[in-house]
Amino acid sequence: MAKNKKQKLKARLPRGFTDRNADDIRATDKMIAAIGKVYEKYGFDPVETPMFEYTDCLGKFLPDADRPNEGVFSMVDDDEQWMSLRYDLTAPLARHVAQNFNEIQMPHRTYRSGWVFRDEKPGPGRFRQFLQMDADSVGAPGVQADAEMCMMMADTMEALGIPRGDYVVRVNNRKVLDGVMEAIGLGGEENVSRRLDVMRAIDKLDRLGVDGVRELLGCGRKDESGDYTKGVGLDEAQIVRILNLTGWKESGSGALGIAGGITIDNLRRDFHDSSLVNDGCNELDRIWTLKEAAGYEDTRILIDPSVVRGLEYYTGPVYEVELTFPVTNEKGQEVVFGSVGGGGRYDGLVKRFTGQPVPATGFSIGVSRLMTALKNLGKLDTSDIQAPVLVTVMDGNEMERYQMMVQELRNAGIRAEMYQGNWKKFGNQLKYADRRGCPLAIIQGEDERDAGEIQIKDLIEGKRLSQEIEDNVTWRESRPAQVSVKEGDLVEEVIKLLDQQADDRSKEAAN
Amino acid sequence: MAKNKKQKLKARLPRGFTDRNADDIRATDKMIAAIGKVYEKYGFDPVETPMFEYTDCLGKFLPDADRPNEGVFSMVDDDEQWMSLRYDLTAPLARHVAQNFNEIQMPHRTYRSGWVFRDEKPGPGRFRQFLQMDADSVGAPGVQADAEMCMMMADTMEALGIPRGDYVVRVNNRKVLDGVMEAIGLGGEENVSRRLDVMRAIDKLDRLGVDGVRELLGCGRKDESGDYTKGVGLDEAQIVRILNLTGWKESGSGALGIAGGITIDNLRRDFHDSSLVNDGCNELDRIWTLKEAAGYEDTRILIDPSVVRGLEYYTGPVYEVELTFPVTNEKGQEVVFGSVGGGGRYDGLVKRFTGQPVPATGFSIGVSRLMTALKNLGKLDTSDIQAPVLVTVMDGNEMERYQMMVQELRNAGIRAEMYQGNWKKFGNQLKYADRRGCPLAIIQGEDERDAGEIQIKDLIEGKRLSQEIEDNVTWRESRPAQVSVKEGDLVEEVIKLLDQQADDRSKEAAN
Repeated sequence: MAKNKKQKLKARLPRGFTDRNADDIRATDKMIAAIGKVYEKYGFDPVETPMFEYTDCLGKFLPDADRPNEGVFSMVDDDEQWMSLRYDLTAPLARHVAQNFNEIQMPHRTYRSGWVFRDEKPGPGRFRQFLQMDADSVGAPGVQADAEMCMMMADTMEALGIPRGDYVVRVNNRKVLDGVMEAIGLGGEENVSRRLDVMRAIDKLDRLGVDGVRELLGCGRKDESGDYTKGVGLDEAQIVRILNLTGWKESGSGALGIAGGITIDNLRRDFHDSSLVNDGCNELDRIWTLKEAAGYEDTRILIDPSVVRGLEYYTGPVYEVELTFPVTNEKGQEVVFGSVGGGGRYDGLVKRFTGQPVPATGFSIGVSRLMTALKNLGKLDTSDIQAPVLVTVMDGNEMERYQMMVQELRNAGIRAEMYQGNWKKFGNQLKYADRRGCPLAIIQGEDERDAGEIQIKDLIEGKRLSQEIEDNVTWRESRPAQVSVKEGDLVEEVIKLLDQQADDRSKEAAN
Repeated sequence: MAKNKKQKLKARLPRGFTDRNADDIRATDKMIAAIGKVYEKYGFDPVETPMFEYTDCLGKFLPDADRPNEGVFSMVDDDEQWMSLRYDLTAPLARHVAQNFNEIQMPHRTYRSGWVFRDEKPGPGRFRQFLQMDADSVGAPGVQADAEMCMMMADTMEALGIPRGDYVVRVNNRKVLDGVMEAIGLGGEENVSRRLDVMRAIDKLDRLGVDGVRELLGCGRKDESGDYTKGVGLDEAQIVRILNLTGWKESGSGALGIAGGITIDNLRRDFHDSSLVNDGCNELDRIWTLKEAAGYEDTRILIDPSVVRGLEYYTGPVYEVELTFPVTNEKGQEVVFGSVGGGGRYDGLVKRFTGQPVPATGFSIGVSRLMTALKNLGKLDTSDIQAPVLVTVMDGNEMERYQMMVQELRNAGIRAEMYQGNWKKFGNQLKYADRRGCPLAIIQGEDERDAGEIQIKDLIEGKRLSQEIEDNVTWRESRPAQVSVKEGDLVEEVIKLLDQQADDRSKEAAN
């Protein structure tokens, strides 16, 4: 048994998983609340599914199928059926709708946030467990539902404090893509998987650049680590027609840029024989007029034929929200931040269960990735939460007294704690208060107790004073860094001091 | 490939997993916010760990080890190491503290909520994925830290609206239990697993009754389904001494009742030779004086030697919060609601990694179970969230107009949606609004459009009026159930009507 083994265990996490600290959690909670407020305003209600689904219910729609188990964490249940951890929130929603089809009122407008899991190679900013926040309209056949999703994505970005101009929602249509592929000889059931490979190749433009994608569309590509990805096997003429579609220049550079030149009119002319391209373009036109009517300019929602989305289940409009401000990547290059969410129409996903078509559209925000972006923009302020007041312990026999003080403070609504470490080294208590950023320390030794008094140390003011002495400048009249009060006045004085500190903070913020 | 299979998939969930609807999610979010507020006031900060841990880091501490894989969902990772989904939030926290030992400031006071997983037989109210909310003080050696946890559990219950008298936090000490077992000949390393079996048997008193536990302590027990659990093999004298300890009467009844008669003084007298019992009693005394000083009467925090807690890793005080109001169980019997959380001191858990003892104490609230209790008490009101205003679609060629209306409403902060289903059957739109509980429907047909007007249907008032006609009573002067406004006055009129509805609701609530 493990308990007889005296050898120490190594504390470690499996690759691609990470702990979250207080700042991250508070920031994420704020983001989720802000996003949820937008979704609610649009009339969506929360619905959630569990982490596990039967593997066949989830289906196999992930973009990277080059690893065993298709990138999904799976295991066999007691009843010999395979179950998997969800890899997104869309496939489970389709199962939920199908399972409750008779009770559900269509259109079914719901949202959810939750952890999803991908058994993929982790990398910088790429985890095997991450947080998504989705909204979906199921039973919504018209492109007006897709247009609404695009507007909601734009509103979400602004609700999070991302300025207009720093984001853009790009919209395309799978029908356009499918029509183009049909036109270059990749139509029909027999080419389903090749079409998918083409889309996945295009979706990698931002990571691999035009040359890399050209290799993927042609004979295949070996990456820096030596891993080889099989190519789609298209000839040069086919490759050029596809690359043209994306609006990418023949520069050979991997840098990002907004697709230029390819318009719906161009597409209609170039592929005038294709009814698929024509249908797709009509839908894109409709989305354009709807979003214009609602006041969303092209800088916020842009029709862009280079958008693909890697997931297999999309059947119509696809959309993606990209942050356009520059950041420096791990190679030191300046790139735009890139995609933080996207989605599209998936009319066939519920049908897998019901047999009848159930039109649906929805999108997903990558919460963890968006948080990184907001940190970059300085939009994640969690400084409104103050550390607790620390009631120190001078005398272990008087613990009841300290306990009473801390309880008095809490009963008055003040965040407070009694020192719970080894109280015998008093220096450690003040060091703890300092590292934790406690605003005040409450102290009562034998002398104070006999006098019915309590010392309150203003740790923020104390730090400021010692800083001023060091810097030899005084920026305002100082308060005493320590005051003595009667026991009965503890709460009142603590409130007064905390208020003064809050005043100082807002004055400093205003400076 | 699955896509060639035309056979329909059955939409279903693995046993023991469940979807959550809007009411459940909103209620849970409110609970978590209320609990978090208490934990924050006590000076705890959020810290979270991922769902997966290496299996050896988690350890095997679960109460029910009678199933394969020890009740834990596990799988082999690419690097041939076993990883598991966390079965609680304590073992991962111990790993987190050990892994960041040099950076962490002790005492480390943190809280977290999160899903945990148990691969157990599901039953009524018993799921394989459920939500816990924990708080822990790591690096806190004194029983004052345990006392604080008990107070915080009591405060949490009251913050959730559970009246004083409807809950009790019971406190015991593993040292007392260990001392008693030593006294009846179950001491020493060689009896570790038998001691554990005894504790797990005692922990089942509420489910199995005295007779069932007597069998578990003796020769073993066969349950209703025919499953056999091996007994500890104690003789009658040993069994009686243990059963006495729990304060359970020889009634053979499985009904719950507060343990009576067993006091710390009795224990000290009955086991005066045991230094373990004595130490444990001293600690319980200390907790008693501390909680008294802070104003927690015995009705809120009670020293109770029958408390055990099933987890293996506890080393000192253990505590449990029980809801004491009666509910009817699935067998139709009236029982007290029972435990909704608990915890204890686990001084050895971090030591598994660091080799040096790191004293720690903490507890866990079973959020899902507590929600069931709050529903019973009528304490979960989510009626503050209103359904959206529905902008109906009369004419598919005028979608842009409807889109503009809905956007205008949203920009004014009003929850609103345009009908996204098939608009051609107008009756379906009103049926949707009715089922969803929409407060208002916005309607513009050709005639209204030509006149620059919009119809607003007050669906709540309309329902009330038709109800009154049916009941043949009028309880107040009615408003018109439909009004016509100029296009420019839409937002103003909607706000007015929503305000009137809110007024009606508060008047009805006051009646």
